[in-house]
Amino acid sequence: MVFFDNASTTKPFESVLQTMQQVNVENFYNPSALYGKSVALSKQIENAKKQIVSALGGSFFDTLVFTSGATEANNLALQNLAKKNGTLLVSVGEHPSVYNTALQLKNNGFSVEFLNLTNAGVVDQKDLQDKLNSYNVVGVSFMHVSNETGAINNIKELTNLVKKHNPKILVHSDGVQAFAKIPVNVTSLGVDLYTISAHKIHGPKGMGALFVKKGINLKPALFGGEQEKSLRAGTENTAAILGFETAVVQSLKQYKQDVALATDLKQALIQELQTQAPFANVLSLPNSSPFIVVVSVSGIKSETLLHLLEQHGYLVANGSACSSRFSDNRILTAMGLDKTLTTASIRISFDANNTKQQVLEFVPIFAKVAQDYLKLIRK
Amino acid sequence: MVFFDNASTTKPFESVLQTMQQVNVENFYNPSALYGKSVALSKQIENAKKQIVSALGGSFFDTLVFTSGATEANNLALQNLAKKNGTLLVSVGEHPSVYNTALQLKNNGFSVEFLNLTNAGVVDQKDLQDKLNSYNVVGVSFMHVSNETGAINNIKELTNLVKKHNPKILVHSDGVQAFAKIPVNVTSLGVDLYTISAHKIHGPKGMGALFVKKGINLKPALFGGEQEKSLRAGTENTAAILGFETAVVQSLKQYKQDVALATDLKQALIQELQTQAPFANVLSLPNSSPFIVVVSVSGIKSETLLHLLEQHGYLVANGSACSSRFSDNRILTAMGLDKTLTTASIRISFDANNTKQQVLEFVPIFAKVAQDYLKLIRK
Repeated sequence: MVFFDNASTTKPFESVLQTMQQVNVENFYNPSALYGKSVALSKQIENAKKQIVSALGGSFFDTLVFTSGATEANNLALQNLAKKNGTLLVSVGEHPSVYNTALQLKNNGFSVEFLNLTNAGVVDQKDLQDKLNSYNVVGVSFMHVSNETGAINNIKELTNLVKKHNPKILVHSDGVQAFAKIPVNVTSLGVDLYTISAHKIHGPKGMGALFVKKGINLKPALFGGEQEKSLRAGTENTAAILGFETAVVQSLKQYKQDVALATDLKQALIQELQTQAPFANVLSLPNSSPFIVVVSVSGIKSETLLHLLEQHGYLVANGSACSSRFSDNRILTAMGLDKTLTTASIRISFDANNTKQQVLEFVPIFAKVAQDYLKLIRK
Repeated sequence: MVFFDNASTTKPFESVLQTMQQVNVENFYNPSALYGKSVALSKQIENAKKQIVSALGGSFFDTLVFTSGATEANNLALQNLAKKNGTLLVSVGEHPSVYNTALQLKNNGFSVEFLNLTNAGVVDQKDLQDKLNSYNVVGVSFMHVSNETGAINNIKELTNLVKKHNPKILVHSDGVQAFAKIPVNVTSLGVDLYTISAHKIHGPKGMGALFVKKGINLKPALFGGEQEKSLRAGTENTAAILGFETAVVQSLKQYKQDVALATDLKQALIQELQTQAPFANVLSLPNSSPFIVVVSVSGIKSETLLHLLEQHGYLVANGSACSSRFSDNRILTAMGLDKTLTTASIRISFDANNTKQQVLEFVPIFAKVAQDYLKLIRK
C-alpha cells in the first residue's frame, strides 16, 4: 500500500517510538510526585516545552500548554478568544475543531462571525477589514495551512491588519498543517496563540500543544490537579510529551530535505496528471503547501475515486479525515467551486516516506481507473 | 528503588507496550479515514469499547467515551450533571478533577453543595439524605475508592438512596482507584456515569474513559470532528485505546491474584508497623482498598518522611500526586483527623510487582528513619 494520506496522520518516527518506550519502561513515574525521579521527569517536560517553543520561534518568555491533541488546543484557544462583550471572528475555512467550536460558542450566546474565503482558499482580507470595522471584535482565529486544500494564509499580514485595528484583539492560528512543513515563526507571525499537533509530524497521537505568547492570561478548560501550572489538569502524558519533543527535533532536522522532496513530488504529480489525465481537475492555488494536492474528476464522487484507488494500492483522502463522512465540502464550496467538483475532490498528501517512483506509477493507474469508471457509468 | 506509589501511576504491562508498538508501527492510520485499513481500525476501537464496557459489568446497550484521561472524563461527567435549574451534590472527599471542577461550576453560577465525610472516610449518608430533601438535586458525584485514604464508598447504597428519592437524578462515580482493584459492576452499582483510567491499571498515560449508561443523553465537552459519535472530537488515540483494552483484559485476568497479594502485603505492613513502629499512626478504616495504606508519624511532615524514605530506596506519596503540592489535606481534615496527622500522612500503595519481602524490609527502615529524625529535631 502506498500511503498518500499524510495530512490525516503520519507514521511515528522510529526515534519517537524509542523515546516513548524508554519513558514507559524506565521512567513511568507520575511527574507530580515529590521524589527525585518524578521531579527529574517534570524537568524533562519543562525542557520539552522550551524546546518546542523555541522550534516555533517563540521567545524565552513565551510558553505552551500540552494538550491531548490539536482539537483540545483549538477548543482551549477559542474558549479564551470568546468574550461576552465582543465578537469572535473565525474563518469559514477552519478545521472542524475550530469551526464547530465556534458554532457551539454561537449557540451558547456568544457573538461569532465567519470570515469569507477568496477563490484562492485564503481569508478574504477585505471581509476581515469590514468585520473589524462593523463589530467590536475581541478575538480572531484563522488557520495557517488548510488541511483540505493546502492553501496558505498570510498570517503575518492578517495579524497585522487585526493588531493595527486594535492591538488588544487576541489572534489564534491553527498551525497543524504548517508546523515543520512551511516556515513557521510565531514571533514574526505576531499571533498570540498557535496550535500544533504531534501525530501530523511523526509524533504520537493523543498529543498536541497550544503556544501561548507571554502576557496572555489563559483560562483553563480542564479542572483538577495543578499540572501545567493549573492550565491543564490531568497526569501529564509523559511518554507522548517527550515523544512529541523527539518528533519536533527530528522534523526540523530534515525539514529542508522534506520540503524539497514534497515540492518535487507535487510538481511531478501535477505535470503527469496534466499529460496523462487531462480530464482531471487539479486545484491550483497561488500559495499552497507542497505537501497537499487536491484533484477531482467531474462525474466521480470522492468516495468512489478513493475506493477505486485503494483497490490498486493507493490510500488517499476525500476531504480531511475529520470531516470524511460529510457528503459536501464546506471549504471548497466557500471558495466558489462548482458542486460537481466539491463532491468529487480527493486529497493526496505526501511525506518523507513517499518517492517520485510512487508518484510516477500512480498517475497512469489514476488515469485508467477514472476513465474505466466514467466509461462504465456512461454506458 | 522499591515503588510503593502505585496509586499515583503504574508501570505499563509488557503486553500493553507490545499492543501500542504494533499499532504505532503497522497500524498508524487515522481511524476516521474511509479506506479499509482505517475502517478496520475503527472497528477495533468499537470492539475495545465493548470489551471494556463488559469488563465494567455494563450491558450491550451501554457505552463509553474514550477521553485523554480520568481528569477529562470527570470534567465531562460533571459538566453533564450540572444543570441551571438544580443542585449538584459532590462529596468533599473527591479527587481534584471532580472537586475543582465542582468549584469551577459553582463560580460559574451553578448551585453546588458538598457532601460531608464520616470519620470512616466515606460519604455521610445522613448528610446526603438531608441535602436530597433540602435541594432540588439534579446530579450527584461520589468516588468509589478514595485515592488518598483507600476508603470504599458503598456506591450501591448511596445510589439507591439517590434514585429512591428521585430516579431522574444522574449519579456519577469516579472509579479510578476501584476498577480492577475491588469488585466493580456498574449495573449492580446503579450508576449512570463511571470514570476509569488506563495508567492506574498498567495501561498508558493520556487515556481514560467515561462509562455511559444507555439512555443517558451526554453532551460533548470537546467540539470538532465526528469521532466517538460526536461525543468527543479529536483523532482517536488508537495506540492508547487498544493499549487500554489490553491492560483491562490482563488486569482482570490477574485480578484475584493481585487482590490476594495486596491484602497480604497490607496486613503484613500494618502488623509489622504495630510491633516495630508503634509510634506510627496507621489510618484504620472499616472498609478500604487492599492496595492503599496511610501512615503518619506525629511530628514528621509528610514531605520530610517521603524524602527520608526515598534516601533509603522507597518511593511513597504524600497524599495523592495530584495534590502533592498542597500543604494541607482536605480529605483527612474532612474526616476529622487532627492537624498533626493530616500534615504528616504518607500513602503507601501496592501492585503486583511488590513482594512481601519488600514490605518486611521496609518496616525496620521506616521505624529507624522516623525515630532518628524525631530524636534529631527534639534535641
